[in-house]
Amino acid sequence: MTGASRFTLVNGREADQVPLTDRGLAYGDGLFETLRVVAGTAPLLGLHLQRLQRGCQALRLPLPHDLADELSSAARRLGDGVLKLIFTRGSGQRGYAIPQHSEPNRIISAAPLPAYPEAHAAEGVRLYACSTRLAQQPLLAGIKHLNRLEQVLARSEWEGREFAEGLVCDQQGRPIECTMSNLFLYADGAWITPELTQCGVQGVMRDWLIAALQAQGEPAQVRQVSYPELLAADEVMCCNSLFGVWPVVRLADRQWPVGVRTRQMQTLAKQAYS
Amino acid sequence: MTGASRFTLVNGREADQVPLTDRGLAYGDGLFETLRVVAGTAPLLGLHLQRLQRGCQALRLPLPHDLADELSSAARRLGDGVLKLIFTRGSGQRGYAIPQHSEPNRIISAAPLPAYPEAHAAEGVRLYACSTRLAQQPLLAGIKHLNRLEQVLARSEWEGREFAEGLVCDQQGRPIECTMSNLFLYADGAWITPELTQCGVQGVMRDWLIAALQAQGEPAQVRQVSYPELLAADEVMCCNSLFGVWPVVRLADRQWPVGVRTRQMQTLAKQAYS
Repeated sequence: MTGASRFTLVNGREADQVPLTDRGLAYGDGLFETLRVVAGTAPLLGLHLQRLQRGCQALRLPLPHDLADELSSAARRLGDGVLKLIFTRGSGQRGYAIPQHSEPNRIISAAPLPAYPEAHAAEGVRLYACSTRLAQQPLLAGIKHLNRLEQVLARSEWEGREFAEGLVCDQQGRPIECTMSNLFLYADGAWITPELTQCGVQGVMRDWLIAALQAQGEPAQVRQVSYPELLAADEVMCCNSLFGVWPVVRLADRQWPVGVRTRQMQTLAKQAYS
Repeated sequence: MTGASRFTLVNGREADQVPLTDRGLAYGDGLFETLRVVAGTAPLLGLHLQRLQRGCQALRLPLPHDLADELSSAARRLGDGVLKLIFTRGSGQRGYAIPQHSEPNRIISAAPLPAYPEAHAAEGVRLYACSTRLAQQPLLAGIKHLNRLEQVLARSEWEGREFAEGLVCDQQGRPIECTMSNLFLYADGAWITPELTQCGVQGVMRDWLIAALQAQGEPAQVRQVSYPELLAADEVMCCNSLFGVWPVVRLADRQWPVGVRTRQMQTLAKQAYS
């Protein structure tokens, strides 16, 4: 399906700028979502909306009831690719206080799917071990807000194509996620993914895979993971809603083959978009 | 001195919008400064530029060498009021990686000085004890970056005029600062201000006062402060570069008179702009 490959909308109208007074710019006061669009629909829209809802609750933002329609309409127009929604508290006067009558801004950008190398999914990726550690803030953990300097810093630690992703730990050195994806490890006969109650982003593909494992009677464990435990795992993979599942084949000196469990997770991830 | 009371500049040109692709909007990938302007000059410009320099180093941002000239020129045009500078990494493609050839955006907004009630400085203010706690992130502590959701959340905890400011603690409950100002307490014959190595914003008025105390042979202590220690202090005040020094006269059940040491600090703060 082919549609308009690139367009941008601000509050439903074609626009490519936002006012300087937007609190998204001033304070990162807002949320975002990145939705994969396939054949005119966003298959994981429901999970994205759930996360938005949680984010709105955490930030005391009103979620417009017609946002789902607006995203669906943009998905039809796009055909195949990626929709990015930035949802801010809108314009405000100077100062941190939330304006009494603020009108949120909905910013939608449509673009083609990033061209990830085929080899990442087929042969696996090497993780860079980021020294940037995530701060622990339970009030903001899990949601996809616009305060992303930690991810920018972590991603800036390496250049070039040797590493496709980077592992990010919390202040205690516990593995939490990767810079733009979530982390799963397979050990002692079960998938484990780090809990995200103190930091990290609760990815929709992570949600999808947890639900899929549950549905087939192999529930994932969501809990704290230590770095030695990660290194000792039988299989490791990272996932997000754009690229699906990438096997992790190396982290520091530890190497893994691409295992059968990871291939099963790739199949589950693909079902999200089929 | 009267000048143009409100204007906005993007990269030196009159504009009131920024591109949707700005990384300040996408990730809070940038810094800001709020400068008080008196009679056509920004007296603490040097301290603001020092903080910007530290922020640029932390975020790997290039600081334009002519930013001081641009701010000085905007100050002349404004006359009296407040200049806000937002300095972002500029436009970027999707993804956290820092673009190889990004061009930072300089956004300057001029406005009148906020109309704080005279009584705040004269009679002191009551602090709200915020339950929002600051996450500890040494890579970002002290600098004035655009990731300010914690301040938005803390400031959203109270409404109305009973409280002029709110006390914010770290995850261990140690007092760090107020939502838009820094905190000082006087105890055992010396001023103390919380160290900001893990969280908090290093305010320029805090810098100014520390230097002024040092110059008169009464150095401030910059160190961890406990909540009981704050309550037990002889005098407490908060400060920023816009309002100077506000005596704190109440926090929870603890009340303080406005002390002579705090009045001395108000005099020192005024010297910044005389």
